[in-house]
Amino acid sequence: MSPSGSQPSIFSRIIAREIPATIVAETEHIIAFLDIAPKAPVHVVVTTKDPQYQNVVELAAGNPALLAELVAVAEQIAAERTHGQFRLVFNTGAAAGQSVFHVHAHVMGSPELTDQLGEDSLGTL
Amino acid sequence: MSPSGSQPSIFSRIIAREIPATIVAETEHIIAFLDIAPKAPVHVVVTTKDPQYQNVVELAAGNPALLAELVAVAEQIAAERTHGQFRLVFNTGAAAGQSVFHVHAHVMGSPELTDQLGEDSLGTL
Repeated sequence: MSPSGSQPSIFSRIIAREIPATIVAETEHIIAFLDIAPKAPVHVVVTTKDPQYQNVVELAAGNPALLAELVAVAEQIAAERTHGQFRLVFNTGAAAGQSVFHVHAHVMGSPELTDQLGEDSLGTL
Repeated sequence: MSPSGSQPSIFSRIIAREIPATIVAETEHIIAFLDIAPKAPVHVVVTTKDPQYQNVVELAAGNPALLAELVAVAEQIAAERTHGQFRLVFNTGAAAGQSVFHVHAHVMGSPELTDQLGEDSLGTL
């Protein structure tokens, strides 16, 4: 149960192993798994195990050290899979593409360094 | 001069008012200005005044509180310009689209909530 009394998010159900996911990294406070609809050759979702923060704004205000830990896990994933080169994306609000209100980052990159992401690929906004 | 002895980044020159930019927010440690090649109706670059961190990985490891302050400024910009709905993007490494090695976030959104960014707009990766 989330603090608001609403249903657990899909991420909380993944963390509880109620829903299958390909988990690629896990620490005491952070978990990362493959995005089920990847938008890049490597596309991993990195989230906090604690569901109390809805978005990066709340996480940064409430627990900067946990945000830093999330970034460190993102870097570890990128070091293993994309030569440490990666895009880190936080969507805040439905109009910005946020669909799960449990703070998470998208880690996007490619194992092929020739597969440049480029500034022009920031999004079809 | 950056700590490595290389030339100041374009962001350091903007901070020093040596290069013009449309500055939209400024605090003791953070500055934000319009992206000169916007990829969204609202596209603002938010960076640290201190050039010592090359990317979000270094910033998170070296100064989590400053990363949190950067996110708070991003949120303030979004509150003023995009109803608080925004995408926050950090590129790490040239292959991920980073062209200035002075940590910065892209804040992207729209003043029109009908102009949905959507999960599908995460990038042409």
